[in-house]
Amino acid sequence: MQTPDIQALVFDVFGTVVDWRGGIVREAVPFLRRHAPGTDSAAFADAWRARYAPSMEVVRTGGRPFVRLDVLHRENLLAVLPQFGIDPARVPADEIDALNLAWHRLDPWPDAVAGLARLRQRFIVAPLSNGNIRLMLDMAKRAGLPWDAILGAEVAQAYKPAPEAYLRTAEVLGLPPGQVCMVAAHNGDLVAARQCGLRTAFVVRPTEHGPAQTTDLVPEQAWDWQAPDLEDLARQLGA
Amino acid sequence: MQTPDIQALVFDVFGTVVDWRGGIVREAVPFLRRHAPGTDSAAFADAWRARYAPSMEVVRTGGRPFVRLDVLHRENLLAVLPQFGIDPARVPADEIDALNLAWHRLDPWPDAVAGLARLRQRFIVAPLSNGNIRLMLDMAKRAGLPWDAILGAEVAQAYKPAPEAYLRTAEVLGLPPGQVCMVAAHNGDLVAARQCGLRTAFVVRPTEHGPAQTTDLVPEQAWDWQAPDLEDLARQLGA
Repeated sequence: MQTPDIQALVFDVFGTVVDWRGGIVREAVPFLRRHAPGTDSAAFADAWRARYAPSMEVVRTGGRPFVRLDVLHRENLLAVLPQFGIDPARVPADEIDALNLAWHRLDPWPDAVAGLARLRQRFIVAPLSNGNIRLMLDMAKRAGLPWDAILGAEVAQAYKPAPEAYLRTAEVLGLPPGQVCMVAAHNGDLVAARQCGLRTAFVVRPTEHGPAQTTDLVPEQAWDWQAPDLEDLARQLGA
Repeated sequence: MQTPDIQALVFDVFGTVVDWRGGIVREAVPFLRRHAPGTDSAAFADAWRARYAPSMEVVRTGGRPFVRLDVLHRENLLAVLPQFGIDPARVPADEIDALNLAWHRLDPWPDAVAGLARLRQRFIVAPLSNGNIRLMLDMAKRAGLPWDAILGAEVAQAYKPAPEAYLRTAEVLGLPPGQVCMVAAHNGDLVAARQCGLRTAFVVRPTEHGPAQTTDLVPEQAWDWQAPDLEDLARQLGA
Protein backbone atom coordinates (compact mmCIF):
# COMPACT_ATOMS: atom_id res chain seq x y z
CA MET A 1 0.00 0.00 0.00
CA GLN A 2 1.40 3.37 -0.97
CA THR A 3 1.82 5.91 1.78
CA PRO A 4 -0.91 8.37 0.97
CA ASP A 5 -0.12 12.07 0.80
CA ILE A 6 -3.24 12.81 2.78
CA GLN A 7 -3.34 15.25 5.66
CA ALA A 8 -7.03 15.20 6.54
CA LEU A 9 -9.94 12.80 6.41
CA VAL A 10 -13.39 14.35 6.22
CA PHE A 11 -16.43 12.24 6.90
CA ASP A 12 -19.96 11.96 5.84
CA VAL A 13 -21.78 11.34 9.12
CA PHE A 14 -25.43 10.30 8.68
CA GLY A 15 -25.12 6.68 7.61
CA THR A 16 -21.32 6.59 7.45
CA VAL A 17 -20.43 7.30 11.08
CA VAL A 18 -23.79 7.01 12.82
CA ASP A 19 -26.91 4.89 12.37
CA TRP A 20 -29.47 7.61 11.71
CA ARG A 21 -32.31 5.21 11.02
CA GLY A 22 -31.97 3.23 14.21
CA GLY A 23 -31.73 6.42 16.22
CA ILE A 24 -34.75 8.06 14.67
CA VAL A 25 -36.81 4.90 15.06
CA ARG A 26 -35.85 4.70 18.74
CA GLU A 27 -36.76 8.32 19.40
CA ALA A 28 -39.94 8.25 17.33
CA VAL A 29 -41.46 5.27 19.13
CA PRO A 30 -42.69 7.12 22.26
CA PHE A 31 -43.80 10.12 20.18
CA LEU A 32 -45.82 7.95 17.82
CA ARG A 33 -47.27 5.97 20.70
CA ARG A 34 -48.76 9.21 22.00
CA HIS A 35 -49.89 10.72 18.71
CA ALA A 36 -50.48 7.86 16.27
CA PRO A 37 -50.56 4.50 18.02
CA GLY A 38 -49.81 1.57 15.75
CA THR A 39 -47.62 3.57 13.37
CA ASP A 40 -44.60 1.78 11.94
CA SER A 41 -41.78 3.90 13.33
CA ALA A 42 -39.32 2.67 10.69
CA ALA A 43 -41.70 3.85 7.96
CA PHE A 44 -41.94 7.15 9.81
CA ALA A 45 -38.15 7.48 9.98
CA ASP A 46 -37.83 6.70 6.29
CA ALA A 47 -40.54 9.20 5.36
CA TRP A 48 -38.89 11.94 7.43
CA ARG A 49 -35.51 11.19 5.89
CA ALA A 50 -37.02 11.09 2.39
CA ARG A 51 -37.62 14.82 2.65
CA TYR A 52 -33.96 15.49 3.52
CA ALA A 53 -32.43 15.64 0.06
CA PRO A 54 -35.26 17.61 -1.58
CA SER A 55 -35.23 20.18 1.21
CA MET A 56 -31.50 20.81 0.72
CA GLU A 57 -31.94 20.90 -3.03
CA VAL A 58 -34.03 24.05 -2.65
CA VAL A 59 -31.05 25.69 -0.94
CA ARG A 60 -28.55 24.29 -3.43
CA THR A 61 -30.50 25.64 -6.39
CA GLY A 62 -30.86 29.09 -4.87
CA GLY A 63 -34.53 28.77 -3.99
CA ARG A 64 -33.79 30.06 -0.50
CA PRO A 65 -30.73 31.28 1.41
CA PHE A 66 -28.66 28.79 3.35
CA VAL A 67 -30.36 27.65 6.54
CA ARG A 68 -28.93 25.09 8.92
CA LEU A 69 -30.12 21.51 8.82
CA ASP A 70 -31.93 21.77 12.16
CA VAL A 71 -34.33 24.18 10.45
CA LEU A 72 -34.87 21.88 7.47
CA HIS A 73 -35.33 18.84 9.71
CA ARG A 74 -38.03 20.66 11.68
CA GLU A 75 -39.86 21.81 8.57
CA ASN A 76 -39.65 18.29 7.19
CA LEU A 77 -41.00 16.87 10.44
CA LEU A 78 -44.02 19.16 10.33
CA ALA A 79 -44.57 18.19 6.71
CA VAL A 80 -44.37 14.45 7.34
CA LEU A 81 -46.70 14.27 10.33
CA PRO A 82 -49.94 14.44 8.28
CA GLN A 83 -48.74 11.43 6.24
CA PHE A 84 -49.18 9.49 9.47
CA GLY A 85 -52.49 11.08 10.41
CA ILE A 86 -51.00 13.54 12.89
CA ASP A 87 -52.15 17.17 12.81
CA PRO A 88 -49.00 19.24 13.53
CA ALA A 89 -51.14 22.02 15.01
CA ARG A 90 -52.23 19.65 17.76
CA VAL A 91 -48.71 18.67 18.83
CA PRO A 92 -47.07 20.97 21.42
CA ALA A 93 -44.10 22.86 19.98
CA ASP A 94 -41.77 21.51 22.66
CA GLU A 95 -42.59 17.96 21.61
CA ILE A 96 -41.77 18.85 18.02
CA ASP A 97 -38.52 20.45 19.14
CA ALA A 98 -37.60 17.45 21.26
CA LEU A 99 -38.22 14.97 18.46
CA ASN A 100 -36.30 17.17 16.04
CA LEU A 101 -33.30 16.91 18.34
CA ALA A 102 -33.30 13.15 17.82
CA TRP A 103 -30.83 13.87 15.01
CA HIS A 104 -28.42 15.16 17.67
CA ARG A 105 -28.62 11.86 19.57
CA LEU A 106 -27.77 9.22 17.00
CA ASP A 107 -25.55 6.31 17.94
CA PRO A 108 -22.32 5.59 16.09
CA TRP A 109 -21.80 2.34 14.25
CA PRO A 110 -19.87 -0.07 16.50
CA ASP A 111 -16.51 0.54 14.81
CA ALA A 112 -16.81 4.32 14.50
CA VAL A 113 -15.35 5.65 17.75
CA ALA A 114 -12.39 3.27 17.77
CA GLY A 115 -11.78 3.77 14.07
CA LEU A 116 -11.83 7.55 14.32
CA ALA A 117 -9.56 7.47 17.35
CA ARG A 118 -7.01 5.45 15.37
CA LEU A 119 -7.28 7.63 12.29
CA ARG A 120 -6.92 10.76 14.40
CA GLN A 121 -3.46 9.67 15.50
CA ARG A 122 -2.21 10.15 11.97
CA PHE A 123 -4.66 12.49 10.24
CA ILE A 124 -6.86 15.47 10.91
CA VAL A 125 -10.37 14.06 11.24
CA ALA A 126 -13.48 16.18 10.86
CA PRO A 127 -17.06 15.74 9.72
CA LEU A 128 -17.97 17.06 6.30
CA SER A 129 -21.63 16.56 6.93
CA ASN A 130 -24.71 18.45 5.92
CA GLY A 131 -25.56 18.53 9.63
CA ASN A 132 -25.06 21.89 11.32
CA ILE A 133 -22.33 22.59 13.84
CA ARG A 134 -24.48 22.30 16.97
CA LEU A 135 -26.00 19.06 15.74
CA MET A 136 -22.57 17.54 15.08
CA LEU A 137 -21.28 18.91 18.38
CA ASP A 138 -24.10 17.38 20.44
CA MET A 139 -23.75 14.08 18.64
CA ALA A 140 -19.99 13.99 19.16
CA LYS A 141 -20.22 14.94 22.82
CA ARG A 142 -22.84 12.28 23.52
CA ALA A 143 -21.15 9.50 21.53
CA GLY A 144 -17.51 10.37 22.12
CA LEU A 145 -16.66 10.98 18.47
CA PRO A 146 -13.13 12.41 18.62
CA TRP A 147 -13.27 15.09 15.91
CA ASP A 148 -10.43 17.58 15.60
CA ALA A 149 -12.87 20.23 14.40
CA ILE A 150 -16.42 20.36 13.16
CA LEU A 151 -16.55 21.30 9.52
CA GLY A 152 -19.27 20.81 6.94
CA ALA A 153 -22.24 22.55 5.41
CA GLU A 154 -22.63 25.30 7.99
CA VAL A 155 -18.96 26.29 7.85
CA ALA A 156 -18.98 26.12 4.05
CA GLN A 157 -22.46 27.65 3.82
CA ALA A 158 -23.22 25.07 1.15
CA TYR A 159 -24.83 21.64 1.14
CA LYS A 160 -23.20 18.59 -0.37
CA PRO A 161 -23.00 17.62 -3.16
CA ALA A 162 -22.45 21.26 -4.17
CA PRO A 163 -18.75 21.66 -5.04
CA GLU A 164 -18.43 24.57 -2.60
CA ALA A 165 -19.05 22.21 0.32
CA TYR A 166 -15.93 20.20 -0.55
CA LEU A 167 -13.73 22.99 -1.85
CA ARG A 168 -14.36 25.41 1.01
CA THR A 169 -13.69 22.64 3.50
CA ALA A 170 -10.29 21.99 1.92
CA GLU A 171 -9.63 25.73 1.92
CA VAL A 172 -10.49 26.04 5.62
CA LEU A 173 -8.07 23.20 6.27
CA GLY A 174 -5.43 25.08 4.31
CA LEU A 175 -4.93 22.04 2.09
CA PRO A 176 -5.09 21.35 -1.63
CA PRO A 177 -8.10 19.08 -2.31
CA GLY A 178 -5.80 16.19 -3.17
CA GLN A 179 -4.52 16.09 0.41
CA VAL A 180 -8.04 15.67 1.75
CA CYS A 181 -9.89 12.35 1.62
CA MET A 182 -13.68 12.17 1.72
CA VAL A 183 -14.93 9.12 3.62
CA ALA A 184 -18.52 8.15 2.89
CA ALA A 185 -20.90 5.24 2.61
CA HIS A 186 -22.55 6.91 -0.37
CA ASN A 187 -21.20 6.68 -3.89
CA GLY A 188 -22.85 9.96 -4.84
CA ASP A 189 -20.97 11.85 -2.15
CA LEU A 190 -17.69 10.40 -3.39
CA VAL A 191 -18.50 11.22 -7.02
CA ALA A 192 -18.90 14.87 -6.07
CA ALA A 193 -15.81 14.86 -3.87
CA ARG A 194 -13.68 13.28 -6.60
CA GLN A 195 -14.88 15.86 -9.11
CA CYS A 196 -13.50 18.49 -6.72
CA GLY A 197 -10.13 16.73 -6.58
CA LEU A 198 -10.47 15.09 -3.16
CA ARG A 199 -9.30 11.56 -2.54
CA THR A 200 -12.08 9.09 -1.77
CA ALA A 201 -12.74 6.23 0.64
CA PHE A 202 -15.89 4.12 0.51
CA VAL A 203 -17.13 2.44 3.68
CA VAL A 204 -19.97 0.04 3.09
CA ARG A 205 -22.89 0.36 5.48
CA PRO A 206 -25.29 -2.29 4.20
CA THR A 207 -28.02 -1.71 6.77
CA GLU A 208 -28.12 2.08 6.84
CA HIS A 209 -31.56 1.90 5.24
CA GLY A 210 -32.60 -1.25 7.07
CA PRO A 211 -32.37 -4.93 6.23
CA ALA A 212 -33.78 -4.52 2.71
CA GLN A 213 -31.27 -1.92 1.54
CA THR A 214 -30.57 -1.97 -2.19
CA THR A 215 -28.34 1.09 -2.63
CA ASP A 216 -24.66 1.75 -1.96
CA LEU A 217 -23.93 -1.91 -1.31
CA VAL A 218 -20.88 -1.81 -3.56
CA PRO A 219 -18.43 0.82 -4.77
CA GLU A 220 -19.62 2.19 -8.09
CA GLN A 221 -16.23 3.59 -9.07
CA ALA A 222 -12.69 2.58 -8.24
CA TRP A 223 -12.44 4.69 -5.13
CA ASP A 224 -8.99 5.23 -3.69
CA TRP A 225 -9.86 3.06 -0.73
CA GLN A 226 -12.78 0.87 0.25
CA ALA A 227 -13.35 -0.72 3.60
CA PRO A 228 -15.96 -2.63 5.58
CA ASP A 229 -15.59 -0.26 8.53
CA LEU A 230 -13.49 2.58 9.92
CA GLU A 231 -11.12 0.35 11.87
CA ASP A 232 -10.24 -1.47 8.68
CA LEU A 233 -9.79 1.86 6.89
CA ALA A 234 -7.40 2.93 9.65
CA ARG A 235 -5.40 -0.24 9.12
CA GLN A 236 -5.25 0.34 5.36
CA LEU A 237 -4.10 3.92 5.87
CA GLY A 238 -1.37 2.87 8.28
CA ALA A 239 -3.01 4.61 11.24
CA MET B 1 -22.81 30.48 44.20
CA GLN B 2 -25.87 30.46 41.97
CA THR B 3 -26.14 27.68 39.45
CA PRO B 4 -25.53 29.52 36.21
CA ASP B 5 -27.92 29.09 33.30
CA ILE B 6 -24.99 28.73 30.97
CA GLN B 7 -24.77 26.09 28.28
CA ALA B 8 -21.52 27.01 26.59
CA LEU B 9 -18.20 28.59 27.49
CA VAL B 10 -16.33 30.24 24.65
CA PHE B 11 -12.69 31.15 25.09
CA ASP B 12 -10.28 33.74 24.00
CA VAL B 13 -7.17 31.70 23.22
CA PHE B 14 -4.04 33.83 22.64
CA GLY B 15 -3.09 34.82 26.17
CA THR B 16 -6.07 33.24 27.90
CA VAL B 17 -5.52 29.57 27.06
CA VAL B 18 -2.03 29.59 25.58
CA ASP B 19 1.17 31.53 26.18
CA TRP B 20 1.62 33.13 22.78
CA ARG B 21 4.65 35.21 23.79
CA GLY B 22 6.65 32.31 25.18
CA GLY B 23 5.86 30.24 22.11
CA ILE B 24 6.79 32.91 19.60
CA VAL B 25 10.00 33.67 21.46
CA ARG B 26 10.93 30.00 21.44
CA GLU B 27 10.28 29.60 17.72
CA ALA B 28 11.88 32.92 16.76
CA VAL B 29 15.20 32.16 18.44
CA PRO B 30 16.66 29.87 15.74
CA PHE B 31 15.23 32.04 12.97
CA LEU B 32 16.79 35.19 14.40
CA ARG B 33 20.07 33.41 15.04
CA ARG B 34 20.28 32.75 11.31
CA HIS B 35 19.06 36.10 10.05
CA ALA B 36 19.78 38.70 12.73
CA PRO B 37 22.14 37.36 15.39
CA GLY B 38 21.91 39.18 18.68
CA THR B 39 18.29 40.20 18.25
CA ASP B 40 16.15 40.18 21.39
CA SER B 41 13.59 37.54 20.49
CA ALA B 42 11.10 38.84 23.07
CA ALA B 43 11.23 42.27 21.46
CA PHE B 44 10.70 40.56 18.12
CA ALA B 45 7.66 38.65 19.43
CA ASP B 46 6.19 41.83 20.88
CA ALA B 47 6.75 43.75 17.66
CA TRP B 48 5.11 41.01 15.58
CA ARG B 49 2.18 40.86 17.97
CA ALA B 50 1.86 44.66 17.99
CA ARG B 51 0.72 44.49 14.38
CA TYR B 52 -2.03 42.00 15.22
CA ALA B 53 -4.80 44.37 16.33
CA PRO B 54 -4.21 47.00 13.64
CA SER B 55 -4.21 44.37 10.89
CA MET B 56 -7.61 43.06 12.04
CA GLU B 57 -8.92 46.58 12.39
CA VAL B 58 -8.58 47.04 8.63
CA VAL B 59 -10.92 44.05 8.17
CA ARG B 60 -13.30 45.20 10.92
CA THR B 61 -13.67 48.62 9.37
CA GLY B 62 -14.32 47.26 5.91
CA GLY B 63 -10.93 48.18 4.45
CA ARG B 64 -10.59 44.69 3.04
CA PRO B 65 -12.72 41.52 2.97
CA PHE B 66 -12.33 38.97 5.76
CA VAL B 67 -9.12 36.99 5.49
CA ARG B 68 -8.01 34.38 7.98
CA LEU B 69 -5.50 35.21 10.65
CA ASP B 70 -2.77 33.06 9.08
CA VAL B 71 -2.75 35.55 6.21
CA LEU B 72 -2.57 38.57 8.50
CA HIS B 73 0.15 36.95 10.62
CA ARG B 74 2.26 36.35 7.51
CA GLU B 75 1.81 39.89 6.22
CA ASN B 76 2.67 41.22 9.67
CA LEU B 77 5.77 39.04 9.80
CA LEU B 78 7.01 40.38 6.48
CA ALA B 79 6.34 43.91 7.72
CA VAL B 80 8.16 43.45 11.01
CA LEU B 81 11.36 41.88 9.67
CA PRO B 82 12.90 45.17 8.47
CA GLN B 83 12.48 46.60 11.98
CA PHE B 84 15.10 44.04 12.98
CA GLY B 85 17.33 44.62 10.00
CA ILE B 86 16.12 41.61 8.03
CA ASP B 87 15.30 41.99 4.34
CA PRO B 88 12.20 39.81 3.75
CA ALA B 89 13.24 39.32 0.12
CA ARG B 90 16.36 37.51 1.29
CA VAL B 91 14.54 35.00 3.49
CA PRO B 92 13.33 31.83 1.73
CA ALA B 93 9.52 31.63 1.56
CA ASP B 94 9.49 28.27 3.31
CA GLU B 95 11.31 29.78 6.29
CA ILE B 96 8.71 32.54 6.44
CA ASP B 97 5.93 29.97 6.25
CA ALA B 98 7.53 27.83 8.94
CA LEU B 99 7.94 30.74 11.35
CA ASN B 100 4.39 31.88 10.62
CA LEU B 101 3.19 28.48 11.77
CA ALA B 102 4.69 29.16 15.20
CA TRP B 103 1.23 30.47 16.09
CA HIS B 104 -0.08 26.93 15.54
CA ARG B 105 2.39 25.53 18.06
CA LEU B 106 1.83 27.57 21.20
CA ASP B 107 1.87 25.90 24.58
CA PRO B 108 -1.11 26.08 26.92
CA TRP B 109 -0.79 27.67 30.35
CA PRO B 110 -0.21 24.92 32.93
CA ASP B 111 -3.86 24.86 34.11
CA ALA B 112 -5.49 25.04 30.68
CA VAL B 113 -5.83 21.42 29.59
CA ALA B 114 -7.03 20.18 32.98
CA GLY B 115 -9.34 23.17 33.42
CA LEU B 116 -10.92 22.73 30.00
CA ALA B 117 -11.33 19.01 30.55
CA ARG B 118 -13.24 19.71 33.76
CA LEU B 119 -15.37 22.44 32.22
CA ARG B 120 -16.16 20.22 29.25
CA GLN B 121 -17.87 17.73 31.53
CA ARG B 122 -20.60 20.27 32.22
CA PHE B 123 -20.51 22.78 29.38
CA ILE B 124 -19.88 23.04 25.68
CA VAL B 125 -16.35 24.43 25.37
CA ALA B 126 -15.08 26.08 22.21
CA PRO B 127 -12.60 28.75 21.24
CA LEU B 128 -13.98 32.11 20.26
CA SER B 129 -10.62 33.27 19.01
CA ASN B 130 -9.54 35.47 16.18
CA GLY B 131 -7.34 32.57 15.13
CA ASN B 132 -8.53 30.65 12.10
CA ILE B 133 -9.86 27.11 12.22
CA ARG B 134 -6.72 25.35 11.02
CA LEU B 135 -4.58 27.33 13.44
CA MET B 136 -6.83 26.42 16.39
CA LEU B 137 -7.03 22.82 15.18
CA ASP B 138 -3.26 22.37 14.96
CA MET B 139 -2.80 24.00 18.35
CA ALA B 140 -5.44 21.81 19.97
CA LYS B 141 -4.12 18.62 18.42
CA ARG B 142 -0.57 19.35 19.53
CA ALA B 143 -1.46 20.51 23.04
CA GLY B 144 -4.44 18.25 23.74
CA LEU B 145 -6.95 21.08 24.19
CA PRO B 146 -10.29 19.23 24.40
CA TRP B 147 -12.57 21.55 22.43
CA ASP B 148 -16.06 20.39 21.49
CA ALA B 149 -15.89 22.43 18.30
CA ILE B 150 -13.72 25.15 16.85
CA LEU B 151 -15.63 28.39 16.58
CA GLY B 152 -14.40 31.94 16.28
CA ALA B 153 -13.55 34.56 13.70
CA GLU B 154 -13.40 32.30 10.66
CA VAL B 155 -16.77 30.68 11.37
CA ALA B 156 -18.32 34.07 12.17
CA GLN B 157 -16.42 35.78 9.34
CA ALA B 158 -15.81 38.66 11.75
CA TYR B 159 -12.98 39.59 14.09
CA LYS B 160 -13.50 40.36 17.76
CA PRO B 161 -14.40 42.80 19.17
CA ALA B 162 -16.94 43.24 16.34
CA PRO B 163 -20.37 42.29 17.74
CA GLU B 164 -20.91 39.81 14.90
CA ALA B 165 -18.08 37.65 16.24
CA TYR B 166 -19.95 37.09 19.51
CA LEU B 167 -23.50 37.08 18.20
CA ARG B 168 -22.89 34.70 15.29
CA THR B 169 -21.07 32.33 17.62
CA ALA B 170 -24.09 32.20 19.93
CA GLU B 171 -26.31 31.69 16.91
CA VAL B 172 -24.20 28.79 15.64
CA LEU B 173 -24.50 27.27 19.09
CA GLY B 174 -28.27 27.69 18.90
CA LEU B 175 -28.20 29.60 22.18
CA PRO B 176 -29.35 33.02 23.34
CA PRO B 177 -26.26 35.12 24.16
CA GLY B 178 -27.11 34.98 27.88
CA GLN B 179 -26.51 31.23 27.90
CA VAL B 180 -23.00 31.69 26.54
CA CYS B 181 -20.11 32.85 28.70
CA MET B 182 -17.03 34.50 27.22
CA VAL B 183 -13.84 33.56 29.05
CA ALA B 184 -10.92 35.91 28.49
CA ALA B 185 -7.86 37.41 30.09
CA HIS B 186 -8.62 40.73 28.40
CA ASN B 187 -11.08 43.24 29.78
CA GLY B 188 -11.72 44.66 26.32
CA ASP B 189 -12.88 41.30 24.99
CA LEU B 190 -15.30 40.98 27.91
CA VAL B 191 -16.62 44.51 27.44
CA ALA B 192 -17.57 43.66 23.87
CA ALA B 193 -19.02 40.29 24.85
CA ARG B 194 -21.12 41.84 27.63
CA GLN B 195 -22.47 44.46 25.23
CA CYS B 196 -23.72 41.56 23.10
CA GLY B 197 -25.46 39.97 26.08
CA LEU B 198 -22.98 37.21 26.83
CA ARG B 199 -21.98 36.31 30.37
CA THR B 200 -18.37 37.05 31.23
CA ALA B 201 -15.50 35.37 33.07
CA PHE B 202 -12.14 37.03 33.60
CA VAL B 203 -9.05 34.89 34.02
CA VAL B 204 -5.99 36.85 35.04
CA ARG B 205 -2.84 36.05 33.08
CA PRO B 206 -0.31 38.43 34.64
CA THR B 207 2.66 37.37 32.50
CA GLU B 208 1.02 37.15 29.08
CA HIS B 209 3.09 40.16 28.02
CA GLY B 210 6.13 39.19 30.07
CA PRO B 211 7.27 40.02 33.59
CA ALA B 212 6.67 43.79 33.21
CA GLN B 213 3.02 43.50 32.17
CA THR B 214 0.90 46.51 33.14
CA THR B 215 -2.44 45.70 31.45
CA ASP B 216 -5.30 43.37 32.34
CA LEU B 217 -3.91 42.68 35.79
CA VAL B 218 -7.31 43.27 37.39
CA PRO B 219 -10.93 43.06 36.31
CA GLU B 220 -12.06 46.49 35.14
CA GLN B 221 -15.76 45.71 35.53
CA ALA B 222 -17.70 43.42 37.81
CA TRP B 223 -17.51 40.43 35.52
CA ASP B 224 -19.83 37.52 36.29
CA TRP B 225 -16.87 35.42 37.35
CA GLN B 226 -13.19 36.03 37.86
CA ALA B 227 -10.56 33.40 38.47
CA PRO B 228 -6.80 32.96 38.70
CA ASP B 229 -6.91 30.04 36.27
CA LEU B 230 -9.24 27.67 34.43
CA GLU B 231 -9.23 25.00 37.10
CA ASP B 232 -10.45 27.52 39.63
CA LEU B 233 -13.10 28.72 37.16
CA ALA B 234 -14.26 25.12 36.79
CA ARG B 235 -14.59 24.84 40.54
CA GLN B 236 -16.59 28.08 40.73
CA LEU B 237 -18.93 26.88 37.97
CA GLY B 238 -19.50 23.55 39.65
CA ALA B 239 -17.75 21.59 36.94
